[in-house]
This record gives sequence, structure tokens and C-alpha cells, in this order.
Amino acid sequence: MLKLCVCVCVLLEWLLGLGAVCGGRWYAYATLGISTAILSFLMDFSVTKLIKAHLWLYVQLHGNTLLQFLCWTLYPACLCAFASSFSYNICPFSTGSGIPEVRAMLAGIEMPQYLSLTNMFVKFLGLICTLAAGSTVFLGKVGPFVHLSTMLGAYLNKLCKEKEMLAAAAAVGVSSCFGAPISGVLFSMEIMSSHFALRYYCPCFFAAACGAVTFNLLSVWSGNTETFQALFKTNFPTALPFFPLEILLFAFLGLLCGAASCCYLICHRWILSFTKTNPTIVSMLTTQRGLYSSLVVFLLASLTFPHSVGRFMVSKYTMKQLLTSLLESRQWSFQSHNASVQTEPLLEWSTSESSVWLSLCFFLLMKIWMLVLTCSLPLPAGYFMPVFIWGAAMGRLLGEGVSVMMMNSGYSVNPGGYALAGAAAFSGAVTHTLSPVLVAVELTGQFTHAVPVLIATLLANGVARCGRRPSFYDAISISKRLPHLPSLNRAYPGLFLRPVGQVLRGQSVQLEKAAGPVEIQHLLSTSMDTHIPVVDSHGEHQVFLHLSEWITLNNYLKSDGWLTNIWGKKQFSITFMSLQAHSLLSLLGNQTLFVVDRGRLVGHITQTEVRRVYVGNFLAFQKLSRAVVPNLGSLPLTVRKHVRAHLECLVHI
Amino acid sequence: MLKLCVCVCVLLEWLLGLGAVCGGRWYAYATLGISTAILSFLMDFSVTKLIKAHLWLYVQLHGNTLLQFLCWTLYPACLCAFASSFSYNICPFSTGSGIPEVRAMLAGIEMPQYLSLTNMFVKFLGLICTLAAGSTVFLGKVGPFVHLSTMLGAYLNKLCKEKEMLAAAAAVGVSSCFGAPISGVLFSMEIMSSHFALRYYCPCFFAAACGAVTFNLLSVWSGNTETFQALFKTNFPTALPFFPLEILLFAFLGLLCGAASCCYLICHRWILSFTKTNPTIVSMLTTQRGLYSSLVVFLLASLTFPHSVGRFMVSKYTMKQLLTSLLESRQWSFQSHNASVQTEPLLEWSTSESSVWLSLCFFLLMKIWMLVLTCSLPLPAGYFMPVFIWGAAMGRLLGEGVSVMMMNSGYSVNPGGYALAGAAAFSGAVTHTLSPVLVAVELTGQFTHAVPVLIATLLANGVARCGRRPSFYDAISISKRLPHLPSLNRAYPGLFLRPVGQVLRGQSVQLEKAAGPVEIQHLLSTSMDTHIPVVDSHGEHQVFLHLSEWITLNNYLKSDGWLTNIWGKKQFSITFMSLQAHSLLSLLGNQTLFVVDRGRLVGHITQTEVRRVYVGNFLAFQKLSRAVVPNLGSLPLTVRKHVRAHLECLVHI
Repeated sequence: MLKLCVCVCVLLEWLLGLGAVCGGRWYAYATLGISTAILSFLMDFSVTKLIKAHLWLYVQLHGNTLLQFLCWTLYPACLCAFASSFSYNICPFSTGSGIPEVRAMLAGIEMPQYLSLTNMFVKFLGLICTLAAGSTVFLGKVGPFVHLSTMLGAYLNKLCKEKEMLAAAAAVGVSSCFGAPISGVLFSMEIMSSHFALRYYCPCFFAAACGAVTFNLLSVWSGNTETFQALFKTNFPTALPFFPLEILLFAFLGLLCGAASCCYLICHRWILSFTKTNPTIVSMLTTQRGLYSSLVVFLLASLTFPHSVGRFMVSKYTMKQLLTSLLESRQWSFQSHNASVQTEPLLEWSTSESSVWLSLCFFLLMKIWMLVLTCSLPLPAGYFMPVFIWGAAMGRLLGEGVSVMMMNSGYSVNPGGYALAGAAAFSGAVTHTLSPVLVAVELTGQFTHAVPVLIATLLANGVARCGRRPSFYDAISISKRLPHLPSLNRAYPGLFLRPVGQVLRGQSVQLEKAAGPVEIQHLLSTSMDTHIPVVDSHGEHQVFLHLSEWITLNNYLKSDGWLTNIWGKKQFSITFMSLQAHSLLSLLGNQTLFVVDRGRLVGHITQTEVRRVYVGNFLAFQKLSRAVVPNLGSLPLTVRKHVRAHLECLVHI
Repeated sequence: MLKLCVCVCVLLEWLLGLGAVCGGRWYAYATLGISTAILSFLMDFSVTKLIKAHLWLYVQLHGNTLLQFLCWTLYPACLCAFASSFSYNICPFSTGSGIPEVRAMLAGIEMPQYLSLTNMFVKFLGLICTLAAGSTVFLGKVGPFVHLSTMLGAYLNKLCKEKEMLAAAAAVGVSSCFGAPISGVLFSMEIMSSHFALRYYCPCFFAAACGAVTFNLLSVWSGNTETFQALFKTNFPTALPFFPLEILLFAFLGLLCGAASCCYLICHRWILSFTKTNPTIVSMLTTQRGLYSSLVVFLLASLTFPHSVGRFMVSKYTMKQLLTSLLESRQWSFQSHNASVQTEPLLEWSTSESSVWLSLCFFLLMKIWMLVLTCSLPLPAGYFMPVFIWGAAMGRLLGEGVSVMMMNSGYSVNPGGYALAGAAAFSGAVTHTLSPVLVAVELTGQFTHAVPVLIATLLANGVARCGRRPSFYDAISISKRLPHLPSLNRAYPGLFLRPVGQVLRGQSVQLEKAAGPVEIQHLLSTSMDTHIPVVDSHGEHQVFLHLSEWITLNNYLKSDGWLTNIWGKKQFSITFMSLQAHSLLSLLGNQTLFVVDRGRLVGHITQTEVRRVYVGNFLAFQKLSRAVVPNLGSLPLTVRKHVRAHLECLVHI
């Protein structure tokens, strides 16, 4: 015990020394991780209590089916109605997943309305209500948690607005949601715009590790677990996790999940456009959000009611129980055949009324359209976990099939491994990411299946990305008109082929090199710009000299010195494409680019300008860009090829 | 079986379709992964045979100590003498680890001499000899393998030189060395210069997965293993891997490893400079490389001879046996106390002559200076694995200590977990990276210890990075004068504060806009440049218009058209810092930047220029940069701050 105290003292001393060296930056990361983990723990705690209360009430009403029905349906309906009206009325930016917004912010777009503390408070409360509605509504926690931790990061970082903090916050969101630090960092990496700066790497890992440790310690101290362990404990056999040739089956599962993800994404895009175009839905979603949510949830709850068709789709299980049961390494089908010889209680999946096969198929069929429907609900909710569980069920179905086929050949196949691979592959394909591989590994602590899970996810991603269709989050970005470059580019290839000249803001205010105090005085009194370019004119030729700050010019007028600000002077040719301009703006962290044509200052581009292009009317742009692309035809073939290759290289993420 | 065939057909068909869509790019990645894994397997196979032959001979000579001594010492000495003279005489670029070179190439510097096929062949053979010398020389495989796979990638990619292939190759190197795809990708990410482009992400994962699958399949087919499994199989208890408060001990271990890494790095830098300055060593290393290697290895082998002090440092174990024994979850100290009650044979670590404690301490003390000495050997060799094993021994020592202290309190501590954390922390601190966390996890398949290993590695990195000392690879980069920005910057802060104006190449050749055919003809016949800038002069003011290709101008002379190449025209202010110029060159993938001062073309900077700055005389630069930094003093305070912040932001990786 004494030794432990000494360790703590050494650690604290070193931490204090570190803080002094790094100016508190690392303290901010640690605070971010720890507080997000506390929020996550509090949320889990309240949600568990609320779900328990619901089930208790349901069990108490045993015998009276009508009352049980009302309890089953009205509880989630009321919670969701409250969540959607509360979140809309206090902060309309708090609905949805939040990941598309975080992506846009990480790409360099400023959206302060999405980072307010009010938003955080509302999203936190709304999410508790959504999650308390349980597996009926079938929504998750990850997406909003990434958003919540970004808001916290932005708040911690109010003094010096660094992108580092936001990147770390995105990692912390995943990490403290699952206690999974490494997948958090990979996730944060994947949602960065086009380049991940390595200077974010250590902060991300540090903050994520703090989050994961706090989350695990809180679980231990609250008595839920005995030590740090995976959120979904599995018992896969370690001696022979799978046979080498099963790799082919995992690859097949990946292709299957990729194909299923395409169907799901098509439905998702359809419902996104339907809720935007159908007059009834639009009017309901603008005026009667609470009513819409409660109606939809009532419908879902009626269907999952255990005395109706709900008994074929394991509707009594919570989300956590669903995933845990799907990841079990025992073979269900074998179990149900030999129900007499086993000692453990039968799973919910295989009841007297339905076999495992019927349950799984019915679950898959019903949940996919329910999932699409819930995406239209205007409340804070995550869409990763439901997709993950659906994929696990898909994998389980294949795994059970394989295990039955192999039963006679003497091989013992672990269907849980297929469920794991299916979960990662389907969620990876839906979101067009690879980090679900590590999420799957960290959630279960099963590293034995890392390679097959990776193979399945890679192939599923390959299928899903064919044809440059937008991913789940891309579709939301497009529907919400969020400025996210890769998603727009995937949806409207050719949008960014426009030359800078078309995007440019004409330079209205400029100062002649030879200008005297009177002209400067006039310019300072009329212009609102903080930076004024100074040019040197020779007849038609204007040469851009440098950029003067308004304040410097003002000081000059008062004094007799002549100070020029040499910073911010970056010149670009007018033939530069907007995409390159965007890349430069976000990579160099500049606010303004000056565009020069044959030495003459033509105008400038700011982050605002670029944003305007993105959030503008896409259809009009599409028409325009079609008109621009054929212009390339006038160039020689080699140049054209070069242009295309260069653009593709930049566009491709 | 029929189903499997169908699966294979579907997979192949889909792969063919994919190939048609993506133009063979993915085939190249798969080929890269598969062929590197085959190379890795072949190498393991030959090395195992060579080591077995050595041990067989040693055992056969039992009874004759002199012959045994000669067998023990001359075998590795001859192998290393052959490796160093062979590799130097055929391709001098094949010695060393190769990771510093790969880093420089990934940062955008072209070094074709390091990518030749001859180099690959020589490095492969040399590495087999080095590894066959066994744990006497105590060198590893990872670094050269990353280099080997980069050479293979460059060869596969000869038609279209993409950076993607090199990034994927770096990932494949680690992946097919250990069968560890995820840590391979993270490693590749960490050795990229300053930004990781997300378009490399999928290719890296795909190639790494192909490499890992092939490596595992080859292991299975050769009968070494029954299925895909971790390279170093462990048997950690999963029920209660560690107690929550042990996190503090893991953190302490991290700090300890960080401190040890600082000592090791100081010794390493000393030997690097010693071998460059001591006249005897320098003359030996330039003329008698084989003799030097054999002498050093003879000394090492004499010391590790099992009948001399070698019996206290487990010198009979191979590298693999060393790591496997260190990662064991059984407690050694407990075992040696109760040697009578156990059934399994005693470990080599605890013999009748020495206790576990003596063995571990002696191993740690001897191996650290031996490791420093082997770094001076001029042969192809990796330095990651030895450092990893040394860290494991360090962790084991702490773990055994803790387990003895806890024995009376009834807690059962797993010392293998400490060994794992120590290995990751020490190797992470020495290389200033975090990917050893995932290497440790993937090598052992133990995800239960992911969080403590991450904590230990983060803290060790924190200690090692304090004071901006160069890492292991940074020190080699500096010693070999390789152009690697972050390492140079860490070694010589202030080096990159020089304005572009000082780095610039003056523009000797340029064309007036008004030039006639005669002047163009003259210019074309005198200039060797492929691109010629066209300017428009107005007295003193020269306006840079665009860049014409030599070939275009030549065509113009022959025809009557006037074609201009509009690409490559990027203008930058002269006040731009060299560091920014470098960032732009590597990020945008351009070859040339044109520098304009008040509209007048001053000169241009190419990759070659930037490289010249890097590989030049650093001391002279340091003096220069000291003279440049005070110039900032003449700027206003706010501007100075801005400059510093901007530079720090760019410099910091």
C-alpha cells in the first residue's frame, strides 16, 4: 500500500512537471477524457434504471394484456415525444447523430451553433430519453456521444481554438462510450477531411486513454465489473478459433454484408428525401415533431409487443442483451435440437413457437425497415449500434448455417465469430469506414478473430464503395446541406472541377503603392475589411505587393513610420481549381488566399467563400460543372490527362 | 466442399470485376502483400534451419569445451562478417535498418538508390545471415523488412510512381513480419512525414490484410501452426487479467521504461558519433568492414558462451524463446521456491547457479551495452525486436517483484502482463511512437491488457520526448544526413526558421513575353531546364506570367500556334519560410515552387533544393539560423508571436 502511495506521488509530481512544460494542454486533454467518461457513465446509469423501471412495470401488469400493451407502447412513445419536442424547442441543432456535423467541423468549417453548452445539455437529456426507449426504438449512443465530447472539447478550448482538441474529442467520444481507446483514435482519423495531421496523434491517444480508464474505473467502482474488461464479454475458444479455410466464408460474409448495406443505404436515402418532399410529413416535422415521433414509436412498439409478432424477434432483450446473445460461441441450432440434454436455460431466440432460423430471419427482415423508419425521427440518436447489431444477426445466421452443415463432418464452428465479423462488416460498409474492425475487437476483447474480421470489413467496404454512392453519414451531410467535401464529391462528382475564377470574390478595395495619406484616410473610413491589399499599377498591369492590416494603416496615419504586415501573402494563379484552394485553406490553416492573374490581383478566396460554394444550390452547380468540364477538351490530350489525374488525386479520399 | 468452391468462384469473379473498375491498382496491393509475406516466410524458414544447424553442432560437440567455444563464437562471427562484406561490396545502401530511409522517402524525398532490386536481393541475403547469428548478436527483422517491402512496392509501381504504394509497403512490411495487419497500418501512419493522407488508408489496410493472411496461411500449410494465431502465444487468465489499482503500477513501469530509453538513446547517439570520429574505427569501417563485424560478434559470442557468463543470461534461448518465456503468465519466483511440487520443467531463467532475479538483472545490464555495440555493425539488421525484448525483461522484473510482494496478500498477479507493457513502453519510447501498443497486442493476441499497455506506452513516450531529444531513428537520420524534417527539427530547433530567400535558387533562365523566335531558339539551345518561366518586364518590375515546357516551345518554333502549359504555376512570397515551402511541396506533390517578390520572379525552389538544405552542413546552418532568429526581434510583438505560433504549429509533429 505504501508503494502504491509512492507511485501516486511520483505520478502526480511528474504530471505537474509535465503541465508546467506543456502549458496545461495535456491537462485539458485529460479533463476532456475524464469528464466525457463521467457523462457516459451517468448516461448508462440513468438509462439502465429507466429501462429496468419499464420492465418492472411490464412484469407487474402480468395477466392483463391490454394494460401490458399500453405500458409497452406508451412508455417509449412518451419518452421519444418528449425527447424530440424538448430538443427541438431548446436547441434545434441537437437532433440526429452529430457525426456529420463533427466531420464538417474537423474539416475546418466553423459551426459555433453546434458547439454551444445549451446544445450539450439538451443533447445529453434527449439522448437519455431515446436510449431509455430501449430496443423497441433500436437506437444507439455513439454518434451523439462523439458530438457531446466535441462540445465539451470546444468549451475546454475556448481560449485557443485548436483543431487538435476537436480531433481528440472525436476520439474520446468513441473511447468513453465503449471503453475502447484505440478504435476511438482510428475513428477520429477516418472522419478527418482528407489528411490526418500526426501532431493530433499523441493528444488523441492520451485523451482516449484517459476516457477509457475513467470509464472502466467507474464501472469497477460502481460494482458492475470486477476489473477492466470488454463491454461485451465473450467466451470464444482460444485454442482453435477458426479453421484456415473459413477465411473464405468470412470473405463471403463480407460480400453479403456489403450488398445488404447497399440496399439499406438506398432505403435510407429514400426516406431522407421522402421526409423532405412529402407535404404531410414535412408539415408534421415542422410543427408537430412530438406527435410524429410518438406515432412512429407507437407503431414500432405495437409491432414489437411480446404478445404480438414481437415474440418472433426477441423484443424483450435490451440492446446489450441482443449483442451479447448474438456473440455467444455456443451453437443455437444444435442446442434447440438437443434441448433435453443441456443444463443452461434456453435462449430467447429459440422458443417453443419459433426456431432459431425463423427468429433470426424475422429479426433481420423487420429490423431493417424499422431502422430506416427510425432514421426519420427528429431526436438525438446514434445509428451505429443498431447497424452493428443487425450485422451481427446477419453474421449469426450464416454462422449457424455453417455450423449445422459442418456438424456431421466433425468440425466445431464458432457462430459467434461470424456474428462479430458480420457486425464489423455491415457497420463498416454502411459508414464506409474500417474502424468498426477495431470497435468489434475492443468491444469483445477477442483478438483471435482480428484477421477474418478485417477481411470481411474490407470486402464489404469494397462492395459498398463501388459506384461512388454516398455513405450513411454522407447522405445526411447532403440532406442537411452540411459542407463536407468528400461526401459532396462522392454525390456530385465534377462539382469541384470549377476554376477558382468562378468562385472568386472580386477585389473591391485596394490601395495603390503611391497612395498618399488622404487616399488612405478615405479608404480606412469606407472599408470594413481588416486586411487591405497594396498594389503597384503600371497601366494595365497591377502587381500585388503585400497585405496591410487596417490597424497598421491607421497607425501609419498617426505616426510617421511605415510598417507593413508581411503575413498572409499567398498568391495563386486563377487557373487553380477550387478544390485545390480548399485543400490549401484547410491544410495551411490560412483564412484568405489571394488570386493573381498575370501579376494582376483578381480577388481573394476566404473560408466563407469556399463554404458558400459548398452549401449553395448543388443542382445549379452540377449544371455549371457540366458546362465547365467540356472546356477541358480544348486543352491538349496530355495536359487534360494531367489535369484529371491531379484532380482525381486530390478528390479521392 | 462444393460450397467452398462456389465461394472461391464468387470471390474471384468479384475480384476480377474490381480489377477492371480500379485498373489493377488493387491487384498491385494484393501482389505486394502476398509476395512480401512469402519473402518473410522464406526468411523465417531459412533462419530457423540455420539456427537449428548451429545448435545441433554445438550439442554434438558436448564434452569438448574448446570446440564448443569455437563453434559458439565462429559460426555467428563468420555469418556477420559475410553479411557485412557482401552487403557493402554489392550494395552499400543495404546496411542498417532502413526505416530512416523509408521515412525520408515517404516524406517525399526521392532516393532511387535505396529502392533498387539489387539492394533488395542483397538485403534479403544479408538479413538471413544476421538473423541466423541468433540471440548472440541479438538483432531483429522488422526494420529491414519494411525496407524490403518498400523496394518491392517501388518495383511493382514503376509505371506510375505513387506515394500510396510506398505507404502501403511500409504497412505490409510490419504486417507480414508478424502477421499483424492493424499495427502495420498504424506504423505506416506514424512514419509519414507530418500528415497522413486518408486516401492511403484503404490501400494500406488491404495490402496489410493480404500480407497477414498469406503469412498465416503459409504457417498453417507448413505445419507450424494449426490455424491463424498470434506469433507469440500466451495464456493470460481472462477472468481477472489485472486489478484496477495495478494501473498505477503500469504507469510507473511506463515512467521507468521512459527513463531507461533516455539512457539507451544517449549511449546510442554516443556510439553513432564515436564510430564517425574515432580514427581507428573509421578506418576499420571503411576498409575492413568484415573484420570489424567478426571481431565485435566474436566478443559478444565469447561473453554469451554458455560455459562462461552466458549461463547467467539465458544465452541458449533464441529470440523467439526469450520473448515467449518472458511473456509467460506463471510466476517464476514462486516456481523456483517450490521447485519440488511442480511438474513442468524448470525454466532456463532459474538454474541451480542463479536465481530468477540475478538472471533478469544480469540480462538487462549486459544486453543494453551489447545492444548499443551491435548498432555499430555495418550489416542489414532490425533494432525493434531486441529493444522490445529488453523492455519485456524490464517489465518482467517489475512484475516478478510485484507478484512476490503480493503473494502474502492473496492476490495473484500476472507478471506476463508487465512484460507485455514493458516491451511496448520501452520500444515505444526508444522509437518515439505509439504503434508498439498494437504490435504488443497483435503479437500476443491479448486484448485484455490493451488499456494498461497503452497507458505505460503513453507515459514512456512522454518521458522520452521531454527535452526534444531525437528518437532512435532520428539519431540515425541525423548521423546518415538523411533528409527527414521532424528529426532534424528535433535535433536542431531553429534550423527551419530561415526565410525562403536564403534557400532559393536564383532564376538564371527566363523568357520575355515579347521574345521572338530567335530568342526562343537561343534559349532552347542553351538551357537544360524542362520548364522555362515566361515573364513580362516593365522596367524594374518583372511579372511572372506562366511556365512553358521546353517541348511546347520547341513545337511552337516548328508550328505557328502558341500553346502554353498552365500547370505548375504557383507563386509564393519571398517571406515564406523554407519549412512552409517544404510542407507545400510534399503536400501538394509539386516539383517546383516559384517565388515572387513584389511581382518580380526571384527564383524557384525544387525538391532538390530543399533536400540540399537538409543534407548540408547542419552546424553551419545552426549558426546561420541563430543569426536569423534575432531578426524576428525587429518585428512588432504581435507579429513575432504569430510567426512563432505558426512555425511551431508546422514544426510540431
